[in-house]
Amino acid sequence: MNSSIIRYILGHVLKIEALVLLLPCFVALIYKEEAGISFFITFLICAVLGILMTRKKPKTFVFYLKEGCVTTSLSWIILSLFGCLPFVISGEIPSFTDALFETISGFTTTGASILSDVECLSYCTLFWRSFTHWIGGMGVLVFLLAIIPLTGGSHINLMRAESPGPSVGKLVPKVRYTARILYIIYFGITIAEILLLLIGNMPFFDAVTISFGTVGTGGFAIKNDSLAGYSAYIQWIVTIFMILSGVNFNAYYLILFHRWKKALNMAEVKCYFLIIAASSAVIFVNIYNTSMGILDALRHSTFQVASIITTTGFATTDFDLWSASSKTILVMLMFIGACAGSTGGGIKVSRFVIAVKNIFKELKYYIHPKSIQQIKMDDKLVEHEIIRSVNVYFLTFIVLFSASVFLVSLEGNDLITNFTAVAATINNIGPGLELVGPTQNFGNFSIFSKYVLMFDMLAGRLELFPLLILFHPVVWKDLFTRRFRSRHRVEST
Amino acid sequence: MNSSIIRYILGHVLKIEALVLLLPCFVALIYKEEAGISFFITFLICAVLGILMTRKKPKTFVFYLKEGCVTTSLSWIILSLFGCLPFVISGEIPSFTDALFETISGFTTTGASILSDVECLSYCTLFWRSFTHWIGGMGVLVFLLAIIPLTGGSHINLMRAESPGPSVGKLVPKVRYTARILYIIYFGITIAEILLLLIGNMPFFDAVTISFGTVGTGGFAIKNDSLAGYSAYIQWIVTIFMILSGVNFNAYYLILFHRWKKALNMAEVKCYFLIIAASSAVIFVNIYNTSMGILDALRHSTFQVASIITTTGFATTDFDLWSASSKTILVMLMFIGACAGSTGGGIKVSRFVIAVKNIFKELKYYIHPKSIQQIKMDDKLVEHEIIRSVNVYFLTFIVLFSASVFLVSLEGNDLITNFTAVAATINNIGPGLELVGPTQNFGNFSIFSKYVLMFDMLAGRLELFPLLILFHPVVWKDLFTRRFRSRHRVEST
Repeated sequence: MNSSIIRYILGHVLKIEALVLLLPCFVALIYKEEAGISFFITFLICAVLGILMTRKKPKTFVFYLKEGCVTTSLSWIILSLFGCLPFVISGEIPSFTDALFETISGFTTTGASILSDVECLSYCTLFWRSFTHWIGGMGVLVFLLAIIPLTGGSHINLMRAESPGPSVGKLVPKVRYTARILYIIYFGITIAEILLLLIGNMPFFDAVTISFGTVGTGGFAIKNDSLAGYSAYIQWIVTIFMILSGVNFNAYYLILFHRWKKALNMAEVKCYFLIIAASSAVIFVNIYNTSMGILDALRHSTFQVASIITTTGFATTDFDLWSASSKTILVMLMFIGACAGSTGGGIKVSRFVIAVKNIFKELKYYIHPKSIQQIKMDDKLVEHEIIRSVNVYFLTFIVLFSASVFLVSLEGNDLITNFTAVAATINNIGPGLELVGPTQNFGNFSIFSKYVLMFDMLAGRLELFPLLILFHPVVWKDLFTRRFRSRHRVEST
Repeated sequence: MNSSIIRYILGHVLKIEALVLLLPCFVALIYKEEAGISFFITFLICAVLGILMTRKKPKTFVFYLKEGCVTTSLSWIILSLFGCLPFVISGEIPSFTDALFETISGFTTTGASILSDVECLSYCTLFWRSFTHWIGGMGVLVFLLAIIPLTGGSHINLMRAESPGPSVGKLVPKVRYTARILYIIYFGITIAEILLLLIGNMPFFDAVTISFGTVGTGGFAIKNDSLAGYSAYIQWIVTIFMILSGVNFNAYYLILFHRWKKALNMAEVKCYFLIIAASSAVIFVNIYNTSMGILDALRHSTFQVASIITTTGFATTDFDLWSASSKTILVMLMFIGACAGSTGGGIKVSRFVIAVKNIFKELKYYIHPKSIQQIKMDDKLVEHEIIRSVNVYFLTFIVLFSASVFLVSLEGNDLITNFTAVAATINNIGPGLELVGPTQNFGNFSIFSKYVLMFDMLAGRLELFPLLILFHPVVWKDLFTRRFRSRHRVEST
């Protein structure tokens, strides 16, 4: 294990965190808030530590899948550990566990809050909460790859560990340019949403923070009623941008280079829109009644479907009061999630597309056992490796999910609360049902349950394995007792 | 598709059904019940139809996986369609849908009842309900294979389609002798339980019917409070026999031939006992309090764990009133199910063992991407085909389960009712939680939901694919428009 490069990259991550912490400091200056001091203190800590850790360059830049996973997991843990300090120092979230929960929830773009009242928070804190979504949405390591030239290594492994979806492809041959293109698209969508929200007379601060939460598919709102208080226009704009943020960013790349046809023919994207349309339609029929007009029913159904499938978690209404079938659809959407290569969480539409194709392949096998069946997607053969990893992903998800529900159930809450609390965190959504419904929060869980849910948020965002291998004894043995040895030089990409 | 052999086997199935219908007729004679006439009428119908269908021998006995699946599914559907007639004719369950539900629930060893009062039923009807469990437990086609010499075909495909578990092995080279050995073991266990129950002063009728329900892991009781009213001794005997019936029957075969060590070292069986011990222990700690003695708590926890993991479904107490963590364990056990090659349902312990080994293999892959990992079980390499089929099984289960929950949710019941009703039927257990809890029944569901749940019971018992391929258009095209053609002669075993 090349631990010197891990240290080096973690140092860079801290430097980036220091940099982005200047933004809430700036917000505090504008609104003349004392809480800004806590951000400045954290900035100093991160900056000093980051500089110390990057002073010595690593001996070798060689970098494999194992290092990629460990670095990614540790980066996210370190980001959250330092990112929660301002909450604790300013006293706005005095409990360390709660502050850490809120920060992990932010960076993993979950949006599950332990706060019952967010309107009493200072502007700089609200800004930081929402900005963590934006950072976490595309990923801090992808950002690092975009700005820092890490030569000599196979850095696709870093991106592979951080980016969601069964197969991470480079858009262009160089990882660095791929990362840059992704951030440019990301930035563009964010600016577009801010502008469209401003046109709808949304205050500038609200437009910026809500856009961070939308495009990062996070879900932290700055009002206690989430987005219920905003105009129908604003809610529609947010709906559209939630849906756009859940699309595979490869599609935007293709569109940028005028390959419209290929973009529109992506099986995953087509399925994603189909699921949104079908779910919204069923829920619309369910909630439409004389007391609610057609337009309102359409807005609420589409908003909630978009919010849950993209794993954002904003709400315009208390969907916990909806009928069983509507709630069942929402719970199913929680697991499906957004497209691979988007900022959204969940199991991802592409994994379900591959899974369903796999089922049909098996059915055909029963009918013609000797014929050779293959799975195709977007006119390309889906490699055996991908199918295997998708299958194992489902298995691991089931095991992790069940174990978490059991651990949370020890606290004694009802089954739906436990089930949806885990579903809402492992899929990075935010609200669930019952005690964690859209009008409730996660503050009442015990410290133990909160750590279980924090683990689930990180596991979900990092797609299970990068976090799970941290628990493999080999990794720790390598990290602490050995130096990088030549016999480990097995190229993995 | 060789449709003449399918017709021929279905005819034999009807003849067997006619034969076993004589048993409740006999019970009716003893208790001098009029309801016996309805069984006799059904006997006549089955016998005549069976004789007509088997008069013409099939042109060829060649028999592949496709035919095996179609025959198995159709056999179970026909068994249930005719098996429900006595309920309708006697008027004890006047609604055809309800009668069919009760019969499918019986044959699939689910034990989910639509009746709120079973104590008002006649003895012959109670006997028939319980006897369907016994027939369904080991499988009617396995019985057929044991008694009728079907020469020339690959009849392992029939057994493969009907027997539970990821890989069906023949115990001895001949399918026929394998089937016989299985039925001899099955018969032996049943007799042993009846004797032990009689020693506990259980009435003979109760001992016989409860033994059918235990050894077949069915769960239909003959009292409204299931087994709560019987003595602690009887409850312990039933607990032990439920657990024994959930063991892979290969283990008994090995023990019969004095290969104790191999039997005791079967990974699946060890895991199965471990899960039972661990779950019982946790629930014991949960329910043990001063109002309930240690022995009572131990009895209730072990009984309920055994009842759910073996997918029997008997109850000694209303576990719906237990704590969230105990209920969560029970719900998890519902999905795990018994061992492959037992009479129990669920996903099967062996599939979970393979799944967990698969997850660890993937973890190792992340650490050493180039090393070749293999999965071993019982010192044998698990073939790639088996791993693939286990993976696809999980995927198909998820899709079928979610679709069923959604369809049942259209009725508007709460989420836990819908979730556990589907879990209890697709895993062939019987009771769930809330509105389908152990003190409730399935009678209040709409006709639509009942058919969804009937489908789930059959899909669960036949392990999904044999039933699902019935919906493949190719099968129907083959069945009705083509004769068996030589180009289909692709041997599948």
